[in-house]
Amino acid sequence: MDKNFKDPFVGVLGGMGPMAAAVFMCRLIAITPVEHDEQHIPAILWNDPRIPDRRLAYFHNGADPMPWINHAIAHMAHAGAKVIAIPCNTVHLWFEKIAAASPIPVLHIVQAVIDDLHRQGIHSGRVGLMGTALTLQLGLYQGFLEAKGYTCIVLNEDQVEEYCTKPIQLVKLNRSNEAFEPAAAGVNILRELGADAVILGCTELPIAVPHYRRSELGVPVIDSIDALAHATLERYRKEESFSD
Amino acid sequence: MDKNFKDPFVGVLGGMGPMAAAVFMCRLIAITPVEHDEQHIPAILWNDPRIPDRRLAYFHNGADPMPWINHAIAHMAHAGAKVIAIPCNTVHLWFEKIAAASPIPVLHIVQAVIDDLHRQGIHSGRVGLMGTALTLQLGLYQGFLEAKGYTCIVLNEDQVEEYCTKPIQLVKLNRSNEAFEPAAAGVNILRELGADAVILGCTELPIAVPHYRRSELGVPVIDSIDALAHATLERYRKEESFSD
Repeated sequence: MDKNFKDPFVGVLGGMGPMAAAVFMCRLIAITPVEHDEQHIPAILWNDPRIPDRRLAYFHNGADPMPWINHAIAHMAHAGAKVIAIPCNTVHLWFEKIAAASPIPVLHIVQAVIDDLHRQGIHSGRVGLMGTALTLQLGLYQGFLEAKGYTCIVLNEDQVEEYCTKPIQLVKLNRSNEAFEPAAAGVNILRELGADAVILGCTELPIAVPHYRRSELGVPVIDSIDALAHATLERYRKEESFSD
Repeated sequence: MDKNFKDPFVGVLGGMGPMAAAVFMCRLIAITPVEHDEQHIPAILWNDPRIPDRRLAYFHNGADPMPWINHAIAHMAHAGAKVIAIPCNTVHLWFEKIAAASPIPVLHIVQAVIDDLHRQGIHSGRVGLMGTALTLQLGLYQGFLEAKGYTCIVLNEDQVEEYCTKPIQLVKLNRSNEAFEPAAAGVNILRELGADAVILGCTELPIAVPHYRRSELGVPVIDSIDALAHATLERYRKEESFSD
C-alpha cells in the first residue's frame, strides 16, 4: 500500500473558471478506457476561483495570480502530483513563470491543442481561433500555430465581444444553455471566412458548444478541454511507466 | 492575500467512482448562485480510484479502504479544507470510522438526502430505494428514513442486480447512455409498488438518470449527488461565516 500511496497523481489547477475545471475532470475520466474504477487516473483538482482575474492583472494592475498558482501547485506536488494540467487558456500567458516556479512539469494547453489538430488529421491549413479577448489580442495561439505552418483566422474586436466573451460569461454564470447560440454564430463566421477547423481556445467554450451539437457546425472544432485531457492521459501513462 | 489563503476550502473525497465525484463538482458549481467566478466555493477534489473496493472489503476480507480515506482527508485538511463531502453512498457504511479519524467535520450523504426530501416537500410516505446491493442489504438508508417516519420500499435481489448494479457498472465503464433504460425500469417498478419518491442512493445512478430525462419517470427522484451538493453549499456558507 505504501508503494501505491507514492504512485503518481495528476494535479489539476482549476478555478479559472471552476466549471471548466470540473468538466475537464469529467472528460479526463470519460476518455480513459477502463474496465474497473481502479484503472482510472488518480487526480487532484485544486479548484480555487479566488485566483485573481487574469485580465485585470494584465491590463489594470490587478492582484497578481502567481502567488495563488504557486501555492496551489506546491500543495498538489506535496500531496503526490507528478504533472500539472491547467484547464484555462488565458492563464497560459503566464506559462513560463508558472513552469519555472513549479517543482513538477506543467503541460501547455496550446501544445495539447496542436497535438489534437494532428490527432484529427489536420496538419496544415487555415484555423479559426476563438477565446478570451486577452488570449486573442496577445496572440497566445498565433505564434505556436504559425510556427507549425497553420494560418490563423481571428474575429474582429466586436465579434470577439459578441461571439466569444458573451458565451464565456454565460457559462461562468451557469447559463450554459444560452451560450450555444452566440458561440455557434462565431464558429459559423470563422467557417465562412475559410477556416478548415475552429479552435475553442477558452475552456468555457467547449461547455457552450457541447459535443452532441457539434455536428450542426459544419466544421471540425478543436476542444481545448478534451485536447488537454488527452495530453494529460498520455503524459500520465509515461510518468506511470517511469515509476514502475 | 494571506487572509484569503486561510479561507475555508471544501474537501471532496472522490474516486468511488471518479466520474460521480467529477459530476458532483459540476453540480456543486451549477447550484451555486454567482455573478463572478470569485463567488464560487473554493474546493479540492481528491479523486483517487485506487481506494480499495468497498464490497470486497466488507464481504471478502479485501484491502481496507480506511488508510486511503484517512490519507486523503489528512492531505485536504492540511491544504485548508474545513469540511469534507464524500460523493459515494456505499462508503458511508464506514461513516463512524471516517468521522472519528477526520480532523474536520464530514457531511453524511444520507442526512443530505433526507434534507433534500424535505426541500422537495416530501415529509412522509413511501420512499423507494435504489443503490448498491451492499448499501441496500446493510440498510444504510432504511434506519435513518424509518426514524424520520418514512416507509422504505426496496427491490428484490434479482431486481437490484438488473436495475441498480447493471446501470452503476455501465456508468463506471463510461457507457452512461446505456444506463438510463435499466435504471429507469427500476424507478418504474418502485413507482408501481407505491413509492411517492425514489432515492437514487448511489452516486452513479443520477448519471444514469440525467436531469433532462427525469420528467419521463412519473415520480420525483431524490438525487444523492445534488442532495450532497446542497448540503455542502449550506455547510460551507456556515463555515465561511464562522471564519469572518
